[in-house]
Amino acid sequence: MLAIFWAAPFVACIALWFAWTFYRGMMAEDAGSDRMQTIARHVRKGAIAYLLQQYRVVGVVFLLAAALLALLSFGLDLQNRWLPFAFLTGGFFSGLAGFFGMQTATQASSRTAQAAAKSLNRGLRVAFRSGAVMGLTVVGLALLDYSFWFYILNRFLHVPEELKMTAITGIMVTFGMGVSLQALFARVGGGIFTKAADVGADLVGKVEKGIPEDDPRNPATIADNVGDNVGDVAGMGADLYESFYSSILAAAALGAVAFNGMGTALQARAVLLPVLIGACGTLFSIFGIYTVRTEENANMGVLLRALGRGINWCNIFVVAAIFCLCRWLNFPNYLGLWGAVVVGLITGSVIGKSSEYYTSQAYRPTQNVARQCATGAATVIIAGMGLGMVSAAVPVLSVVIGTICAYALASGFDFSQVNAGLYGIGISAVGMLSTLAITLATDAYGPIADNAGGNAEMSGLGGGVRERTDTLDSLGNTTAATGKGFAIGSAALTALALLASYVEGVRMCLMRSGLTAIDLGTRAVELSSATLQDFMTYFEVHILNPKLILGLFLGSMLSFVFCGLTMNAVGRAATKMVNEVRRQFREIKGILDGSAEPDYGECVRISTSAAQWEMIFPALVALCAPILVGLFLGVPGVMGLLAGSLSTGFILAIFMANSGGCWDNAKKFIEEGQHGGKGSSAHHAAIIGDTVGDPFKDTSGPSLNILIKLMTIVSIVAVGITVKYHII
Amino acid sequence: MLAIFWAAPFVACIALWFAWTFYRGMMAEDAGSDRMQTIARHVRKGAIAYLLQQYRVVGVVFLLAAALLALLSFGLDLQNRWLPFAFLTGGFFSGLAGFFGMQTATQASSRTAQAAAKSLNRGLRVAFRSGAVMGLTVVGLALLDYSFWFYILNRFLHVPEELKMTAITGIMVTFGMGVSLQALFARVGGGIFTKAADVGADLVGKVEKGIPEDDPRNPATIADNVGDNVGDVAGMGADLYESFYSSILAAAALGAVAFNGMGTALQARAVLLPVLIGACGTLFSIFGIYTVRTEENANMGVLLRALGRGINWCNIFVVAAIFCLCRWLNFPNYLGLWGAVVVGLITGSVIGKSSEYYTSQAYRPTQNVARQCATGAATVIIAGMGLGMVSAAVPVLSVVIGTICAYALASGFDFSQVNAGLYGIGISAVGMLSTLAITLATDAYGPIADNAGGNAEMSGLGGGVRERTDTLDSLGNTTAATGKGFAIGSAALTALALLASYVEGVRMCLMRSGLTAIDLGTRAVELSSATLQDFMTYFEVHILNPKLILGLFLGSMLSFVFCGLTMNAVGRAATKMVNEVRRQFREIKGILDGSAEPDYGECVRISTSAAQWEMIFPALVALCAPILVGLFLGVPGVMGLLAGSLSTGFILAIFMANSGGCWDNAKKFIEEGQHGGKGSSAHHAAIIGDTVGDPFKDTSGPSLNILIKLMTIVSIVAVGITVKYHII
Repeated sequence: MLAIFWAAPFVACIALWFAWTFYRGMMAEDAGSDRMQTIARHVRKGAIAYLLQQYRVVGVVFLLAAALLALLSFGLDLQNRWLPFAFLTGGFFSGLAGFFGMQTATQASSRTAQAAAKSLNRGLRVAFRSGAVMGLTVVGLALLDYSFWFYILNRFLHVPEELKMTAITGIMVTFGMGVSLQALFARVGGGIFTKAADVGADLVGKVEKGIPEDDPRNPATIADNVGDNVGDVAGMGADLYESFYSSILAAAALGAVAFNGMGTALQARAVLLPVLIGACGTLFSIFGIYTVRTEENANMGVLLRALGRGINWCNIFVVAAIFCLCRWLNFPNYLGLWGAVVVGLITGSVIGKSSEYYTSQAYRPTQNVARQCATGAATVIIAGMGLGMVSAAVPVLSVVIGTICAYALASGFDFSQVNAGLYGIGISAVGMLSTLAITLATDAYGPIADNAGGNAEMSGLGGGVRERTDTLDSLGNTTAATGKGFAIGSAALTALALLASYVEGVRMCLMRSGLTAIDLGTRAVELSSATLQDFMTYFEVHILNPKLILGLFLGSMLSFVFCGLTMNAVGRAATKMVNEVRRQFREIKGILDGSAEPDYGECVRISTSAAQWEMIFPALVALCAPILVGLFLGVPGVMGLLAGSLSTGFILAIFMANSGGCWDNAKKFIEEGQHGGKGSSAHHAAIIGDTVGDPFKDTSGPSLNILIKLMTIVSIVAVGITVKYHII
Repeated sequence: MLAIFWAAPFVACIALWFAWTFYRGMMAEDAGSDRMQTIARHVRKGAIAYLLQQYRVVGVVFLLAAALLALLSFGLDLQNRWLPFAFLTGGFFSGLAGFFGMQTATQASSRTAQAAAKSLNRGLRVAFRSGAVMGLTVVGLALLDYSFWFYILNRFLHVPEELKMTAITGIMVTFGMGVSLQALFARVGGGIFTKAADVGADLVGKVEKGIPEDDPRNPATIADNVGDNVGDVAGMGADLYESFYSSILAAAALGAVAFNGMGTALQARAVLLPVLIGACGTLFSIFGIYTVRTEENANMGVLLRALGRGINWCNIFVVAAIFCLCRWLNFPNYLGLWGAVVVGLITGSVIGKSSEYYTSQAYRPTQNVARQCATGAATVIIAGMGLGMVSAAVPVLSVVIGTICAYALASGFDFSQVNAGLYGIGISAVGMLSTLAITLATDAYGPIADNAGGNAEMSGLGGGVRERTDTLDSLGNTTAATGKGFAIGSAALTALALLASYVEGVRMCLMRSGLTAIDLGTRAVELSSATLQDFMTYFEVHILNPKLILGLFLGSMLSFVFCGLTMNAVGRAATKMVNEVRRQFREIKGILDGSAEPDYGECVRISTSAAQWEMIFPALVALCAPILVGLFLGVPGVMGLLAGSLSTGFILAIFMANSGGCWDNAKKFIEEGQHGGKGSSAHHAAIIGDTVGDPFKDTSGPSLNILIKLMTIVSIVAVGITVKYHII
């Protein structure tokens, strides 16, 4: 094994050590008054109760799935015997990252509020460093998990040296399954929880009773704050853990294929490059996190610049470091590979910027949507939907251009070098996510600031604290949109790279079945030397094959159905919440004048139980669809399914994220005093828009990224079933 | 030429003669009181003014496009010299059908109201037969246009006998371009007009002022009624004209390819089969139309049965007749071909039924959405969107199963017979649309009944007339959903079949460039005998080719962007309308107490001018995208684009149609007295849902079917540019 490999676990440990330092630093801050601590404890209790309940349900699903995988692996020899264990560790580490992040976030809310009472700069630092705990924990654990399995397989897998890298990466690519499944549960469950609570709190509290956001008289307000943590912190953490981990797996697998036969040393370096890029990015993210600070009385622009400065420094150093890395690892086309990484970083930024443009109230699109509030809820919904749909153009075009560039650069502008080109695409996705630790920090601190605001409101802190936390929160909305852009963009590239891994899976599977050559009609090709194109010809994976087209239909359809299922789940849960909140206002006398305390726990319970039940069915759909399609339509059907869910899901995700973000900020824009301000009829219309957008941007939309990759990995795991037992 | 060919123009003339008879019959009915005639004249004047204005704009676009096509055809020899003329006749006939249909509908409204005043049965007959004028005109003109060009090409095209059918159908497949473009303009323009008026009328009239639908005090009420005609009659007519025409073109082209080399007589019969199936269906549709009648005091169920009886009889006879036709034309696999037609009819019915299930207030889904109205507009929107997304499952699964069956039946269960199988898919689409005349009659009579209701309301007709027309209208909503199901299902099948025509276009184009063989790496294949699979291998149109995947992304993205553009157009136009209606209520004193008449004309003008301008850009996107993608990404990119827009557009169209239909009927359900009935807060929420659904179901959704096919045909027309000048 190359010595440079140890850089990855080493950086992982550094990241975790810094996470621990930041955590202790945050805990050493003043936790605020008794009232503030009580409220924070309420929220923390609810969040941890939810998480434990969810992990119980997920744990059962995981054990069942692992048993099934073990059965398949040992009994039918469909997959390797490491998978069941890696499946469990993946889920466990991802869950752990979510748990740590949430623990930090719930501890940080009252401390951020207290720090903001002193100065904006202190508030920013506490919130941002708490967010950094999340970011560093996620990448640290992901690098550690990856390194662990790479080491184990390298040590204990007994295959000839020249096949080793291909075998290891071929096995490891399936290890994303646990991570993806856990991410799906966390996103969908958390998304349902948070949006049911949010919708319930807003519709009855704000619209019907006219009390402000986070008012302690609202029975759903604690559930709403809990939701911010379980959805926007734990859910997002698991989501980006998955993005980071999968992108490295996919790129490593492509590296083994692309550099196959070019010497084991070079191939091993190609396999290690993705995780080293991740380690590099993490190292400089820590540096970037230290540079984020701002002067007092900073406005939004100054704050954004402060965060931007951290990210920019980080990016500059990462780009330089990765150039040295590619050069030093002595790749023949080191410039091309480095170019692909840079392309990934640029593509991610463009997608992020376009999300910001379409969803920030600082720009015209959202201002136009806000203007539509004057003519009522219907026109604001139509305008927001229209905007979201049109907004898909820029991210798609940038992914298209980025992909072509990455492919061309990595393949030395020779388009027939499919494997090298695809490796470029994979590396590009890793590049996009390399600075995840700092982007996630800027992302996770949003809900912390939001919760701090809630805490300040509920505990009656005056002195402009709420205004300061609102400034932080508003900034968080923008950075969250950027973070989602990275998640979506990298998902498209990773899923595309994983498609090639699927074909490698088919090759392995045919080899295991004893076949040595495939018959292409006019000639036979050795299985071990067959190119991707040969497989495409052999299985007729072309666009006129009706099986492929039908798979494409099914994949597109599943993206929509999955969204529909999660939207319906939120709708059902929100209805229960609305009824419960209305019941409490009706039955518990004195809530509105503050003489009686509402039953916060019941609202938390409703959200928790709804999230548990409602997340099972969509997850089952995602798990079973690739297997069923494979059984009926064979390899072309599965590849169609994956391509269909990828292309439709990618765009649906952008549409939903941007529509939702735009409604949210259009509401904020009006609350800032435009078009009549708070309490006006325009504000009512904007709240309806925001409420519709809630499941768009925080439940259905972000789950799609995970769905796409989960289906691909399930297809790879189940490739043996498809190849052996397909019907037509 | 086979004698049986003459059956097509003969049936076309019969259909037109019956259309004329029904028209005269309708005109002979009592046109009602002076007040009723005045209102009808207002609406007619507005509708015709709109149509003339639209045709002027469209005419200019058509002349420019025809000139461009002529330039390309003669100058660059990229296409045949017939195309510019066929392009113009296609657009002209389609526009003519829309004009006749609208002329009939606007004449029929007051007569239907008057007839309904006498009895429900008379009302049904007048409305339904007027709808039949539309249905028969559409299929009659389409059959005539098709026959005309087939005759001309057969007579004047000088190619060797054995190449004749391939040449004719290869040229004619591009003739759908004029029809598709005109359909797109009619759908988008009409959709924007009608929904801007509808949204404006509802939001200010119903919600803000609390006056009922179709109240003459509402300034937008005439525009709303005009909109029903230009959108739901003329727009839908052009849409289904296009579906019918394109499905025949696509199937005929595939017939020539599939039966190539099996004898010119058999090949000619295979080419003629689609148009003969269409003629057959038209003949029995006339018969079915005659059987529709009902007793007095019929409720909705009885009415549905009356319509169902007509359609069922028609279907039974058509199935039997097509069996005889296939047998008599002596196809070796006549049972398989007949089976494919039957599969098409069944698939269409299943899609129609599923639309009915998801959108009719008689079933649980819409009732559930109506229940969500109790918790406000946001939850009703979330629920309706969720329902629409989930509702994609059944239509997609039925298309998938139908396609497999049609393919298997027509290819004799030999999946390697790609051409024969694709012909089966094409024939299946024709089968689905064969009874279009009667389905369109049941579809077009809805807006007529709706307008009759408006006329009755505005002219103050009492005596339960409004209740009767409402019964008819409500039925029309259900049948309209079914009609949309047919349009969507047939679009998916036709576009799939056209993909194969694209490859034939590539072959022609390579041949014209002087190439005789294509090099597949290990072997060369004669261009004339290369199979579709050979082309797929040659151009690398497989799913791992990044150009194809990127095309796929772009295609999916364009579906969304197109929807977004049309939604935004409706939103902008509706805002103008809302402001104008509010202005009139504010400035013209005495509108509300009936002492002053509002300025109806201004509202019609606003809708008209908005529709003109807003339809241009989306149409340009549809026209330019395939050419640009072809220039940058070559053949694989274009095929990816088409497959992406097909799979995403198909499902997006179902989602939008069903969400929109469901909100509409949820509102009707509440208006029938559920959940508080008219004027309750649930009703307000339902109106907002209905308003959001308006552009969904009547503008963006139905335009997608046309978009998909238009892009495919443009790709075929521009295939020479793609093959010669592509960059990578």
